[in-house]
Amino acid sequence: MRELFQADLKSLGDQLVEIAGLVRVAMERAREAVETADVEQAEQVISDDARIDTLQNTLDEKAIELLALQAPVATDLRTVVGSLRMSTSLERMGDLARHIAQLTRLRYPELVFPESRRESFSRMADDCVKVAAALEQLLTEHDLDYAREIVKLNNEINELHAQNFKAVAAADWDATAPQTVDVTLASRYFERFADHAVSVSRKVTYLLTGEWEPTIPSA
Amino acid sequence: MRELFQADLKSLGDQLVEIAGLVRVAMERAREAVETADVEQAEQVISDDARIDTLQNTLDEKAIELLALQAPVATDLRTVVGSLRMSTSLERMGDLARHIAQLTRLRYPELVFPESRRESFSRMADDCVKVAAALEQLLTEHDLDYAREIVKLNNEINELHAQNFKAVAAADWDATAPQTVDVTLASRYFERFADHAVSVSRKVTYLLTGEWEPTIPSA
Repeated sequence: MRELFQADLKSLGDQLVEIAGLVRVAMERAREAVETADVEQAEQVISDDARIDTLQNTLDEKAIELLALQAPVATDLRTVVGSLRMSTSLERMGDLARHIAQLTRLRYPELVFPESRRESFSRMADDCVKVAAALEQLLTEHDLDYAREIVKLNNEINELHAQNFKAVAAADWDATAPQTVDVTLASRYFERFADHAVSVSRKVTYLLTGEWEPTIPSA
Repeated sequence: MRELFQADLKSLGDQLVEIAGLVRVAMERAREAVETADVEQAEQVISDDARIDTLQNTLDEKAIELLALQAPVATDLRTVVGSLRMSTSLERMGDLARHIAQLTRLRYPELVFPESRRESFSRMADDCVKVAAALEQLLTEHDLDYAREIVKLNNEINELHAQNFKAVAAADWDATAPQTVDVTLASRYFERFADHAVSVSRKVTYLLTGEWEPTIPSA
């Protein structure tokens, strides 16, 4: 019984890794789509999102079945409940990558971002791809260095988010109103994407250490 | 044992109602703050949000304790897991009311919305207050009429959200870039607020009927 349960727990973990892998691919494709106005890549992200939703439902049903059949306690229970929460965050990350792809499709054949913000968004998108890759690794290897990396990347993304808002409010901002809307929304989508990754990495950290914050060695 | 468990389940439900009540008050105050540039009301929403976060944590710990000690199955198990998810959605609704209050504070003593969008946002805010009130009633009385009302209000809010985006893209849009940002963000905050309410009401509907959708009688 106990061994069976451990196998079930491992299978939950594997499903989280699988979803995290799909989220990473979604963000990689969304980045390419938005940077090159690649509408086919955007369509791919949009249609693939259904797969993430399905996997999340499968994982959630599996977790509830585990709770019913095995009645886990202590750390095992927190792991199962944590999986439910992490799957919700991963599913939202998939939605946010899809939103970026939807902006790409909406503005095609134009590029979404005005010239003056392209470099900033390119860094944001790169950081989000790195966040997604680090999250997949964290869930696979349970090495807290990845959690620290996610926190650092999130700080950078928050800084870029603030810069975008500052640029829009500046006197020399000359983009159109729809471009202003796109900058506002996309900046928020990237920022929320990273927030959810931080939320997942906090849960992993808690499950591994009993502490909520990854300890970041001072430089 | 069984009676004790039912009392615990009821206490979880009461905590959800309590959080939903605080979310309703937060949205009522956020509406007043944003419509009248009332910065004190805005500060109140911002500082009261911590109370929602604390109650959510308390509820979650209680739910996990219930799972550990009582090992519920079937409907009871789904109710406990559902409470965990509903508390997450309610906490996000509180955050979104706080974001509206933060916009109010940011633009004080100016009003957040340009003249031309005020009526539209007034309807959106009213609808969100109604959504929050209906959600509190749904969690209190378990009457699915409230779930149907939430779905209807959400449709209206989605329509107003689309109208805001259309207005910003129109040739006669003459608001400043920061106002365009505010309209974009606030419209999205209201829309997400209602989305979370729909998500909670779907869970309540599922727990009461085994079906995900409230049946809306055709007019």
